[in-house]
Amino acid sequence: MRPSQRQLDQLRDIKLTRQYTKHAEGSVLVEFGDTKVICTASVEESVPRFLKGSGSGWVTAEYGMLPRSTGSRMDREAARGKQSGRTQEIQRLIGRSLRAALDMKLLGENTIKLDCDVIQADGGTRTASITGGCVALYDAVNFLLAKKAIKQNPIKQLIGSVSVGMYQGVPVLDLDYAEDSTADTDMNVVMNEAGRFIEVQGTAENGDYDAEQLQQMIALAQKGIAELVVKQKQVLGLL
Amino acid sequence: MRPSQRQLDQLRDIKLTRQYTKHAEGSVLVEFGDTKVICTASVEESVPRFLKGSGSGWVTAEYGMLPRSTGSRMDREAARGKQSGRTQEIQRLIGRSLRAALDMKLLGENTIKLDCDVIQADGGTRTASITGGCVALYDAVNFLLAKKAIKQNPIKQLIGSVSVGMYQGVPVLDLDYAEDSTADTDMNVVMNEAGRFIEVQGTAENGDYDAEQLQQMIALAQKGIAELVVKQKQVLGLL
Amino acid sequence: MRPSQRQLDQLRDIKLTRQYTKHAEGSVLVEFGDTKVICTASVEESVPRFLKGSGSGWVTAEYGMLPRSTGSRMDREAARGKQSGRTQEIQRLIGRSLRAALDMKLLGENTIKLDCDVIQADGGTRTASITGGCVALYDAVNFLLAKKAIKQNPIKQLIGSVSVGMYQGVPVLDLDYAEDSTADTDMNVVMNEAGRFIEVQGTAENGDYDAEQLQQMIALAQKGIAELVVKQKQVLGLL
Amino acid sequence: MRPSQRQLDQLRDIKLTRQYTKHAEGSVLVEFGDTKVICTASVEESVPRFLKGSGSGWVTAEYGMLPRSTGSRMDREAARGKQSGRTQEIQRLIGRSLRAALDMKLLGENTIKLDCDVIQADGGTRTASITGGCVALYDAVNFLLAKKAIKQNPIKQLIGSVSVGMYQGVPVLDLDYAEDSTADTDMNVVMNEAGRFIEVQGTAENGDYDAEQLQQMIALAQKGIAELVVKQKQVLGLL
Amino acid sequence: MRPSQRQLDQLRDIKLTRQYTKHAEGSVLVEFGDTKVICTASVEESVPRFLKGSGSGWVTAEYGMLPRSTGSRMDREAARGKQSGRTQEIQRLIGRSLRAALDMKLLGENTIKLDCDVIQADGGTRTASITGGCVALYDAVNFLLAKKAIKQNPIKQLIGSVSVGMYQGVPVLDLDYAEDSTADTDMNVVMNEAGRFIEVQGTAENGDYDAEQLQQMIALAQKGIAELVVKQKQVLGLL
Amino acid sequence: MRPSQRQLDQLRDIKLTRQYTKHAEGSVLVEFGDTKVICTASVEESVPRFLKGSGSGWVTAEYGMLPRSTGSRMDREAARGKQSGRTQEIQRLIGRSLRAALDMKLLGENTIKLDCDVIQADGGTRTASITGGCVALYDAVNFLLAKKAIKQNPIKQLIGSVSVGMYQGVPVLDLDYAEDSTADTDMNVVMNEAGRFIEVQGTAENGDYDAEQLQQMIALAQKGIAELVVKQKQVLGLL
Repeated sequence: MRPSQRQLDQLRDIKLTRQYTKHAEGSVLVEFGDTKVICTASVEESVPRFLKGSGSGWVTAEYGMLPRSTGSRMDREAARGKQSGRTQEIQRLIGRSLRAALDMKLLGENTIKLDCDVIQADGGTRTASITGGCVALYDAVNFLLAKKAIKQNPIKQLIGSVSVGMYQGVPVLDLDYAEDSTADTDMNVVMNEAGRFIEVQGTAENGDYDAEQLQQMIALAQKGIAELVVKQKQVLGLL
Repeated sequence: MRPSQRQLDQLRDIKLTRQYTKHAEGSVLVEFGDTKVICTASVEESVPRFLKGSGSGWVTAEYGMLPRSTGSRMDREAARGKQSGRTQEIQRLIGRSLRAALDMKLLGENTIKLDCDVIQADGGTRTASITGGCVALYDAVNFLLAKKAIKQNPIKQLIGSVSVGMYQGVPVLDLDYAEDSTADTDMNVVMNEAGRFIEVQGTAENGDYDAEQLQQMIALAQKGIAELVVKQKQVLGLL
Repeated sequence: MRPSQRQLDQLRDIKLTRQYTKHAEGSVLVEFGDTKVICTASVEESVPRFLKGSGSGWVTAEYGMLPRSTGSRMDREAARGKQSGRTQEIQRLIGRSLRAALDMKLLGENTIKLDCDVIQADGGTRTASITGGCVALYDAVNFLLAKKAIKQNPIKQLIGSVSVGMYQGVPVLDLDYAEDSTADTDMNVVMNEAGRFIEVQGTAENGDYDAEQLQQMIALAQKGIAELVVKQKQVLGLL
Repeated sequence: MRPSQRQLDQLRDIKLTRQYTKHAEGSVLVEFGDTKVICTASVEESVPRFLKGSGSGWVTAEYGMLPRSTGSRMDREAARGKQSGRTQEIQRLIGRSLRAALDMKLLGENTIKLDCDVIQADGGTRTASITGGCVALYDAVNFLLAKKAIKQNPIKQLIGSVSVGMYQGVPVLDLDYAEDSTADTDMNVVMNEAGRFIEVQGTAENGDYDAEQLQQMIALAQKGIAELVVKQKQVLGLL
Repeated sequence: MRPSQRQLDQLRDIKLTRQYTKHAEGSVLVEFGDTKVICTASVEESVPRFLKGSGSGWVTAEYGMLPRSTGSRMDREAARGKQSGRTQEIQRLIGRSLRAALDMKLLGENTIKLDCDVIQADGGTRTASITGGCVALYDAVNFLLAKKAIKQNPIKQLIGSVSVGMYQGVPVLDLDYAEDSTADTDMNVVMNEAGRFIEVQGTAENGDYDAEQLQQMIALAQKGIAELVVKQKQVLGLL
Repeated sequence: MRPSQRQLDQLRDIKLTRQYTKHAEGSVLVEFGDTKVICTASVEESVPRFLKGSGSGWVTAEYGMLPRSTGSRMDREAARGKQSGRTQEIQRLIGRSLRAALDMKLLGENTIKLDCDVIQADGGTRTASITGGCVALYDAVNFLLAKKAIKQNPIKQLIGSVSVGMYQGVPVLDLDYAEDSTADTDMNVVMNEAGRFIEVQGTAENGDYDAEQLQQMIALAQKGIAELVVKQKQVLGLL
């Protein structure tokens, strides 16, 4: 039995709120249960140096947690003067994942910066960030299309992400903190709307896992991400 | 005429939402119109080194802005590796102001850390932070009383803050961004619930001001802060 | 009775020594009693990026204290790898205040950098820095005029600064360290030579203050700054 | 056909040289073809603060590349003043992976620090680091046993790691730089000597991959790691 | 002929002013012609960790230049967030040199920190710092003796330093900036009052030098340092 | 008797291995006995800003130690976020010394960066770095000549370096760690192939030394460097 009383293959309540703040070209509050992340997408009409003159655009991401988004207060990274290894690992994952959503040639020499800031953490902040970030990215692209800064829509596909894990020997979908902190294996999966993999990261926190368990977790993730993509399409008016 | 159509002595819509997030001992969303700040108060059962063994507690504050809380995206301070001078100036002001709310002896050797994170900026983020932070502080003190970590209530007084300024030659209350960015003088005032000053900071951004104008602005601030304290008391159930 | 035996409205001995060091375009040793600050003004024939092509110039300031300018040795900020919040707050104040002295259009695309380095501290280092820095700025402008780098004098007005405070319940002028460290309220006031305000910063360190006390302190500051401006004019040969 | 003429399931030449340098308790030069990494294991008779008094030990890792280990010179991280996100991501992976080799209780309150420094890079530096680091770790444990600092051998299992990927549509084992830089998918797999997973990280650099391809890559990795574990056992005299 | 019209073996005007500032236990303004350095010595009743419990004391030094101590303004190291290699090289030299002045056992577990801050630079700032720092150190030791924190005088010998160099093919003593910036060889020599070497650092900036030239420079340095030690003794009342 | 049984004027076994790694234009493993340093020379077709348009090139150096190159593990500088004063002092020395090898005009606007990374330390790492770095520099110049990026050979002379010192009252050549850590005086000497000085740095670690001892050490260094230059010429095929 899961602490949250959910079924093994049941997502938490998922909410995606567009136009959450007023300044950003894309701005989404994503909620996976009690996990709440503000994802903004900001458009810049330039590209990093390695792309200057290439005709291609870029997508990059930054991630942060409010100091008291967690059960006990974490030091503020801006005050400590550097981002933790965990933060860097996560924002690299978000950036890689969301670059898969776009055709960079069609984006032209524009950069879209995703900022994913965790307001309240209860497990799965990186998967919520990717899922909500994709919607913010979509809105930023719409902004570029509306002002005719680009001619053709560069969106190739929606990207969703969810965590799966082995909890008390059983594969479960979308771990919350109570599960995540005691799980044997924690796996973050990123997929496109066609159900194909963009990224798989599975860590045996405690012990190890075999190919069959890997398969079971992968299957759960596929089911969960398919549901997340439906949520994305609903909120974007694509369904 | 003000861009927002407000009267010269009229505050923006003020909202204080308690228990905004679930982990912090005090957690408040404060809104001054479109300016939105999450203020959390975290309790630590220890004090900075200079107070060890003194029997007294401490209150300190940190301030941050989400990168896209503003019209154009600002670099993330955690990524740049240091907090700006503006950030440090503001968090020092918030800390000083809220220390005036408490009797540090009655707080005992506990520290309350305020985190004020701006979700959306439209002028007056520091005054909103102080006003909302005071409510979060109040809730954190209630937490300490409820768990009997302290015996006597250390709250001496509520603290509120508002900006005033000379806008097109006329004193106005609670400047929003449209006013603030073109005002001749910008003054931030912090007062206690008895209407006495804790801090006054007035800067002639453009030109200078005389003693009479100073008086006019001060009078406006007194009116505004009195109204803010009423809001604080309402949300805290003290009225 | 003040520890220094001064009258309530009496400044400390004020000395302004021009050409204190030989390399800078403006170089002043300012002494407010035992507080001694070297203020140098350096001319650069360029402006920060946000002013490129605007035709306007800029004034900026940096502040530092020698490690043993104080009663107990402070860590060297260069060795710690960052400037403290207090340092940043002060140098922002100095820069803002001295920008009020100049017409930036007449300065052309030149930058004047003020460096205020405290050799010996006894209270009031920021007000001494502004007062002495204004004289160094004046000399740097003279340098630009003499080499015909600018055609018209951009000096609009002299700027002076002094601290006032409530000490043992009484308003006093120009607090030294013995007073400053125990004062109830500490207020730094910056004015132009016409006696109008550029900046007012008043902090209740201990308790609070009311509008009448604010008025009394302001009046003292006006008297003190008027005397400081006379000193500036004397040393600059304007009287 | 692979650029290196290897079979699809063929590892590069693997060499593990123990006692490569003289100071460290464990010191291994690991070579995966032209990729060369010095792995040292250093014993410290203490543990990080969060383990003080727990009776348990710890394993941690740091990773670096010599500036000219790569085709074009990279900036030295020590000179830039911070480690890149990539470096942090890799050293977190190495540390997590090698902690799986030990029973931390049996290690007692000792810490083993792995330093993996890339002398020459040709793809797969992180998997070489884990594979070589495990041998260095083994030697450091032997050192502790020999000096009777611990009573019982804490080694639970050997850990090996290899990369696999989709190269021109075909799954290949142990990618070198020529393959890695153009692969569609790059997957790093960490397994124990029983062939069970410790970590799986698969990234679609270009496009995406499906569950069948995931399976094929996983199978290749299992074959490769089994061979690497044989190499480890040979050099450790366990076969 | 030297630009300053000095004889080849002639020092600049040397001034040592004790009690230059009021807070430090030792405080000296040292002038080698136009080079002016404030040297303060601060006493701390503790030692670095590696000396705890050893019964021995320590002497350490820090060095800085005011931004406009030089012909063109240098960036402030505190603002850049790190000390330059040159600064570190110099402060290490000053610390090593002045440790030779004391018997660390007799100093007991006390630390004396020298701060050498260049007010105006005209060549030879490191040699002036050592020469002036030694007098400040002497005064700090007197302070410890006067308050009976140590029983026996730990001063072993006075230490002086001067630069010599090959200027236009001729060995000269005590180079000023005009000479230093065009010299073929620049050598800094540190000696004790007995005329024996503590440190010799000679760099061929331009070309090279042979053993005979080395001898000539060394002989000049011996003469110069003997004169500097007389100055130190005079100002300390030892002659 | 020396701990290593060497004669007083005997170098350790010296080995210079060219083409040690495959990517750098020059790559040398230098061994002075158990001291092992990888020296790579990287060519960049640009110069630092202060040389842009001058027609001259530049040589610069960076130095690092692997964390466990030493008897006890040192913190990694990249993780600490800054290079130590010792590191900076050494890399400045290497750069200065090797710039003496080249005619910068003939190098044209190219930069050669030397990276000296200590794999195993046993005393004399900086002198080994200079001696090995010179060979790597030579190979990088050959690379530029071979690809006709420069027309004329800019090598003026080979540069070698060795340490000498007073060990138990006797001058000895090429100190290893056992000697270096207890020597009274430690001197690093850099010479060109003509036996003339480029740099002399002699520090009395313990006590002092006189002119005669200086002469004796210098003579030993001349003998040792002459032998090192023969080694350089042999490995470069110049003998």
